[in-house]
Amino acid sequence: MGSTDTAASREVREVLDKVRAEGRAALTAPEGRRICEAYGIPTPGEGLATTEDEAAKLAADLGFPVALKIVSPDILHKTDAGGVLVGVNSADEVREGYRKILANAKAYNASAEIAGIQVQQMLGGGQEVIIGATTDPTFGKVVAFGLGGVLVEVLKDITFRLAPIDAGEARSMLDGIEAAEVLRGVRGADPVDAEALAAVIERVSRLVTDFPEIAEVDLNPVFATKDSATAADVRILVETGEVAEPVRPEPEEILRVMTKLMNPAAVAVIGASNEQGKIGNSVMRNLIGGGYAGQIYPINPKSDEVEGRQAFKAIGDVPGEIDVAVFAIPAKFVPGALEECGAKGVSAAVLIPSGFAETGNVELQDQVVEVARRHGIRLLGPNIYGYYYTPSNLCATFCTPYDVRGGVALTSQSGGIGMAILGFSRTTKMGVSAIVGLGNKSDVDEDDLLTFFEHDDNTTCVAMHLEDLKDGRAFVDAARRITKKKPVVVLKAGRTALGARAASSHTGALAGDDKVYDDILRQAGVVRAPGLNEMLEYARGLPLLPTPQGENVVIITGAGGSGVLLSDACVEAGLSLMDIPPDLDESFRKFIPPFGAAGNPIDITGGEPPSTYEATVRLGLTDERIHALILGYWHTIVTPPMVFAELIARVVREARDQGIDKPVVASLAGDTEVEQACEYLFDHGVVAYPYTTERPVQVLGAKYRWARSAGLLRP
Amino acid sequence: MGSTDTAASREVREVLDKVRAEGRAALTAPEGRRICEAYGIPTPGEGLATTEDEAAKLAADLGFPVALKIVSPDILHKTDAGGVLVGVNSADEVREGYRKILANAKAYNASAEIAGIQVQQMLGGGQEVIIGATTDPTFGKVVAFGLGGVLVEVLKDITFRLAPIDAGEARSMLDGIEAAEVLRGVRGADPVDAEALAAVIERVSRLVTDFPEIAEVDLNPVFATKDSATAADVRILVETGEVAEPVRPEPEEILRVMTKLMNPAAVAVIGASNEQGKIGNSVMRNLIGGGYAGQIYPINPKSDEVEGRQAFKAIGDVPGEIDVAVFAIPAKFVPGALEECGAKGVSAAVLIPSGFAETGNVELQDQVVEVARRHGIRLLGPNIYGYYYTPSNLCATFCTPYDVRGGVALTSQSGGIGMAILGFSRTTKMGVSAIVGLGNKSDVDEDDLLTFFEHDDNTTCVAMHLEDLKDGRAFVDAARRITKKKPVVVLKAGRTALGARAASSHTGALAGDDKVYDDILRQAGVVRAPGLNEMLEYARGLPLLPTPQGENVVIITGAGGSGVLLSDACVEAGLSLMDIPPDLDESFRKFIPPFGAAGNPIDITGGEPPSTYEATVRLGLTDERIHALILGYWHTIVTPPMVFAELIARVVREARDQGIDKPVVASLAGDTEVEQACEYLFDHGVVAYPYTTERPVQVLGAKYRWARSAGLLRP
Repeated sequence: MGSTDTAASREVREVLDKVRAEGRAALTAPEGRRICEAYGIPTPGEGLATTEDEAAKLAADLGFPVALKIVSPDILHKTDAGGVLVGVNSADEVREGYRKILANAKAYNASAEIAGIQVQQMLGGGQEVIIGATTDPTFGKVVAFGLGGVLVEVLKDITFRLAPIDAGEARSMLDGIEAAEVLRGVRGADPVDAEALAAVIERVSRLVTDFPEIAEVDLNPVFATKDSATAADVRILVETGEVAEPVRPEPEEILRVMTKLMNPAAVAVIGASNEQGKIGNSVMRNLIGGGYAGQIYPINPKSDEVEGRQAFKAIGDVPGEIDVAVFAIPAKFVPGALEECGAKGVSAAVLIPSGFAETGNVELQDQVVEVARRHGIRLLGPNIYGYYYTPSNLCATFCTPYDVRGGVALTSQSGGIGMAILGFSRTTKMGVSAIVGLGNKSDVDEDDLLTFFEHDDNTTCVAMHLEDLKDGRAFVDAARRITKKKPVVVLKAGRTALGARAASSHTGALAGDDKVYDDILRQAGVVRAPGLNEMLEYARGLPLLPTPQGENVVIITGAGGSGVLLSDACVEAGLSLMDIPPDLDESFRKFIPPFGAAGNPIDITGGEPPSTYEATVRLGLTDERIHALILGYWHTIVTPPMVFAELIARVVREARDQGIDKPVVASLAGDTEVEQACEYLFDHGVVAYPYTTERPVQVLGAKYRWARSAGLLRP
Repeated sequence: MGSTDTAASREVREVLDKVRAEGRAALTAPEGRRICEAYGIPTPGEGLATTEDEAAKLAADLGFPVALKIVSPDILHKTDAGGVLVGVNSADEVREGYRKILANAKAYNASAEIAGIQVQQMLGGGQEVIIGATTDPTFGKVVAFGLGGVLVEVLKDITFRLAPIDAGEARSMLDGIEAAEVLRGVRGADPVDAEALAAVIERVSRLVTDFPEIAEVDLNPVFATKDSATAADVRILVETGEVAEPVRPEPEEILRVMTKLMNPAAVAVIGASNEQGKIGNSVMRNLIGGGYAGQIYPINPKSDEVEGRQAFKAIGDVPGEIDVAVFAIPAKFVPGALEECGAKGVSAAVLIPSGFAETGNVELQDQVVEVARRHGIRLLGPNIYGYYYTPSNLCATFCTPYDVRGGVALTSQSGGIGMAILGFSRTTKMGVSAIVGLGNKSDVDEDDLLTFFEHDDNTTCVAMHLEDLKDGRAFVDAARRITKKKPVVVLKAGRTALGARAASSHTGALAGDDKVYDDILRQAGVVRAPGLNEMLEYARGLPLLPTPQGENVVIITGAGGSGVLLSDACVEAGLSLMDIPPDLDESFRKFIPPFGAAGNPIDITGGEPPSTYEATVRLGLTDERIHALILGYWHTIVTPPMVFAELIARVVREARDQGIDKPVVASLAGDTEVEQACEYLFDHGVVAYPYTTERPVQVLGAKYRWARSAGLLRP
C-alpha cells in the first residue's frame, strides 16, 4: 500500500480543505472528479458550463451524445431533482436541456446554490458496476464492489473488504459477487478489463486510507468495458467532526500480560468464601480441585482460612507477587478492590460479577475501566463465568472443573453460550486448552486472546462466539496473523439483524447488514460457523484432521444412497470431488464387485466384507493424487460397526506411520451400534458421525476453507 | 383450468398439424404468434414482409422504432445469425436493414429457407421477464417464470410450477423469485401489472396442458408494464414422436392393495429357513418375535417346520388365503415363485433380494414386473430391507424388530438410509407407524405409500428419502391430498447434481437443475429437508408439535446470548418474531428484573428462579395473540436443568388441559445434565435440544412451512 505521490496528496488535500472550510459534508461533482483524477481513477470527458452556449460548445467538443447534470452543493440526489438528462444528441438539444434542468432545480429547491451544469461525455456499452467505500462503525474504512442496477439494489449482490487492499485482493472482489460470471462475459458480451476495474477499487481503498476524513465514496455507475473502467458519477462525503483512532497496545505488550493471565504464578480470589454455593467458594474449590500448582491467595476480611488456604484481609496484605486477581464480590465493591490490586501491582483482573453495562450500569463499568487504565491492569469481563486454561490446570470459574486437555481454545461473549461450550466439551470429551468468558469486554477482547493463542503451543485451533467486535480492525490484524498457522472458527451472532443505520450513500446503505462481517471475516482467514452446533463440531473436528495437501476429495461408500447425499454435501461445502483418472479407477475396480461403481463416489456396494473397505480405503490413502477421504458406512452383518471402526482406525494409523496424513471423515448409517463406532473413530483421529451425511462433510469443508485461505493447498 | 373455447383450439390444432405434416420440431415466429393470439397472450403489432418496400410500409403503419427479424424454420437462434435489428427508426433504415439481415442469414446458412422478415413494433420501458413451459422427464408439463437478462441467465432466478395452474398459483410465481421486489417497482419505476403477467403464465400453462405435443414454449422477453404484459418473442417446440401417458391405478385400488400389504391376514415367507444368519430365518424370527398376530406360512421345499411353524413345500400347498408373500430367495428364482404367488392369488410381494436393476440386471427385473402385472400382484422392491408396520406388529425385514409405536411413517429408497432411519429411531425412541424400503421401485412407489398413509389413522406424519420419482405427477397428486391433513417431509437426494439434459430452449435449459424439484415439491405442500439429519429430526419433532394458529412467534430466554442466536435462527427458518404490543410487553415486564429486556426475545436474564420461567412461559401460552414459543434455557444453580424441564412440561400440560395447545420448542445451554432434560421435554411434547440454538427453531420452522401450505394458519 503506502501513500500516493505528493502531488496527488496535495491536490486532494486542497479540495478537502476547501470543503471543510465551507463546512460542507458533500463534495460537488467537479471536486469528486478532481480527486479521482489525482488518484488515477478514470472519469469521462466533461466540463462545467455556466451558460447555454458554453454547454453547447463543450458538448460539441466532447462529441455527442452527452449527459447534462446539475452541479449544486445543495442537491445531492440529482435525479430526484430532475437535474439529469442523458442521451442529449445535438447542440440545440443541449440548449433546451440546460434550460429545463435549471427550471427543475429551482422547482426542487428554490434556494439551492447552483454552480452550473456539467456536460459529460456519455459512456455506452460495457457493464455498469458500483465501486465505493464507507466507514463501518466496527471495521473503519471498507471498500465495496457490486454490479449496478437491480443486482446490487434488490439482490444486494455486493462484496466488501477492509481497506487498504492490494491488487490481488481487489481482483478477488470481482469473483466475490454472485453474478461474477457477468464480468467474464455472457451471451456474447465482452469480458470486462478486470485489471482496470481492480485498479479503480485499489485506488479508492488507498484514497480513503490516506484521507480518513473521507467518510464515503460512491462511484456509481462505473462503466466497465473490455479495455477500460470509467467512473461516470462520483459522490464523496467527508466527516465533519474529528476522526479518532482507537488506542491499540503493541502485540508484544498484549502477549506479555495475556501470558501472565493464562500462566499466573499466583492468583488472588477477592471475595473467597467458605460458604458453599457462593461464587467465591466455587472459584476457590475449582482452583484447588482443578490442580492449579501456583500460589492461591484467598482475600476475605472476615476469615483467616478459606478452603484450607491462609486468607488475607486485603490484597495488600499478601506477601508475594500476584499476577491475577479473580473478583467474586458484588459489582459496587469492584472499583475499590481494583484500586488495591493496582497498588499491589496485579497484572490482570478477572471480573466475574454482573451488574455493570449489561444491566444499564455503564457508569460503574466506565469507572472500573478508568481505575484499571490508571494502574495498567488488564480486565477480563465483567459479567463472565471466568476462564479455564488446562495447561496450567487453571479453572478460575464458578462452573465445574474441566480436565480433558487438548488443542482447542474456545471463547464466548455470552455466559449461556459458555455453558453450552462446557456441556458439549464434556459430553464429547473434547480436548480443550482454554475456555474463556468475555462478557462485557470492558477491556480484554477477541484480538487480545487471538494474539495469545497465536503464540500458545498448547492451542491448535480457536473457536469464538461473538456478538460484536469492539475494534474490528484490531481483530482482523490479529486474525490474519494467527490464521496463517491455526484455524479460527467464529460464530457471529446477530447475523440476520438488519442494520438500522442512517446512510446517505449507496455503499453506506448496503453496508448496513451482515455482509460486511461476512466478507471481512473471510478476508481475515476466519472460518465462519453458520450456527452454534456447527461452531462446536468444527472446534471438535478441525484439530483432529490433518491439513489437506490439495483439492482432490474422494468418497468411498458401502451405501449408494449415502454416496448421493455425501456428494450433495460436498457441493454444499465447496469441496471438489476428484475426477478419478482411468488408471486409478481401474485400481479401485479390482477391489469392488462388478456391479459396484467406481468413479466418485466409489460405491463398493452393501454386502461387502471388511477387506473391501480396507483395500479401497488403503488405496485412497496411499495414492498421492487423492488428498482427502469421505467414508460412507452401511451397517451389515458382514461388516458390523465396530469392525468397520477398528479397521479404519488401523488403516489410517498404518498410513500415518508411513508419513501419509490425509483428512478422513465418515458418515455411519446403521443401528445404534454405529454411535459407539463413531466415538471410537473420533478417538482415533477420524471425524465420524451417525445418522447424518452432512455433518462430517461440513467439518471437512471447514478445514478446507481454512487451509485455502492460509495458502496451504497445492494449486 | 379446463380447455379453451373451440375456436382457439381449432386454430392451434391447425398450426400444429401443419408443423407436424412438415416434420418440423420448431414453429416459426408467425406460427407462434398465431397460437399466442388464439390463447389470448398479447404480442406486439407486427407483420411479415417479403420485400423491402413491404417492410418499410409495415413499419410506417406500426410506428417507429421497429425491430426486424429473420423468419426461417432453419434459423432458430436469430441473434447468432445476425438476423435481428432493433431500434430501426425510419423507412430508409428499414430498407437497409432488410438487405443486411438477408445477407447475414445467407452467410450463416446458405441453404436456409427464408419466409421473409418480420417487422415488429418495438416495445420499450417496463420490465423484461421470461415466461415459458417445458416438458420435465419427471413431472411432465411445467411452466416457468423469471426476470429477463442476467437474473435468469446467470443467477438462475427462475421459478417453476406443475401445469396446469390457476390464477392464484400463477400470481404466486411472481413472488417466487429472489428479485420479486423488482416487479413491485424499485427506484421510482412503476410496478408491473401482476394480473396481466399472471394471466399470460396461466394461459401458457393451459396451452401446454391442452396440447401435450407442445414440448417447450419460450416467451422471451415478455415486456411487463404497469398496465400490460406483451410477449415480444415467441418460440414453440413440438414433440415429433408419440406422447405416452403413464398408467395410473385409481386411488381406491391403490388403497385396497396397500391396506392388505400393511394389515395382512396372512403372510408367506418364501425361502423361510431355520439357519441363523440367513435372511429367510431373520424374516421369520422378526415376524414371530415382533408379535405379528396373523397367519405366518414358511415356504421351504426341504423343511416341514421353520421356527416352530408348519412349513410348506410351495405356496400353492398353503390351505388358507395369503395377502403378502415376502421373498427371501436368490433373484433368479423370483420369477418362478412369483408365478406361483399369482396362481395362489397373493395381493402383494415383498422382494428383499438384490441382483436386479441395481446390479445391471434390468432384464430380470422387467421379467418380474411382467409376471406381477399379469397376475395383478403389487411389488415392493426389489433390493430392500423389507418393511415395518407397527400397528400390525409387522416386522417383515431381516433387521431387528422395532416396537416403539407412534405416528411417523418413514420410507427410504436406499437401504443405507433405511438403516440410518432405524438406528436414529431406536436411539431417540421415536414413535413410528411404518418404516418401508422402496429400493428399485419396480412397482410400489412413494405415491402408493402416500395414498395409504393419507387414510391411515395410525400415521400423523410422513418422512421420505428419495433419489428420483418414477411419476412426478402421480406423486404430486397424492402429496397434495395428504398434505392438507398431515405433514410430509421429503429428503430429495441428488439435489446438487447438475442436469445433463440437452435442451434447445431457455426454459428447458434452466429446468435442468434441482430448482424444478424444489418448486414443485413446495407446490405440492411437501416440506423439503435440507439433509438426512434434518429429515430425521423433523420426523421426530413434527408429530409432537401442535399446529400453530398464526405467525406470532415469541422467544423467552434466560440467556441473552441464546436469544440473539435464536432470533438469527428464526429469520433463517422463515419465522416471524411477534411485534409485542405495549400491554403485553408490560405484562411480561412484571415478571422479569428491571434490567431484563422485554420486547422479543424476552430476556428474563440468567440468575432467575424457576418461578420467572414459569410465569413468563404461562403468560406466553395463555395470551391469545401469541402462537408459538421458543425457549432459551441457561443452566444455573438457581434453576437446574431438570427443574426447568419438569416445570415447562407441567406448565405446557396445564395449558393443554385448558384447551390451549401451542407449539413449544427449547434450546438448552448448559452442562451435560441438559441432555437428560431435553429427553424429558421430548417425552412431554416439547421439542428440545442441547448445545444448539438452530435445531429447535428449524423443526418449528418445518411445522410452520407445512401449516402455511395446508392453509391452517389464520391470515
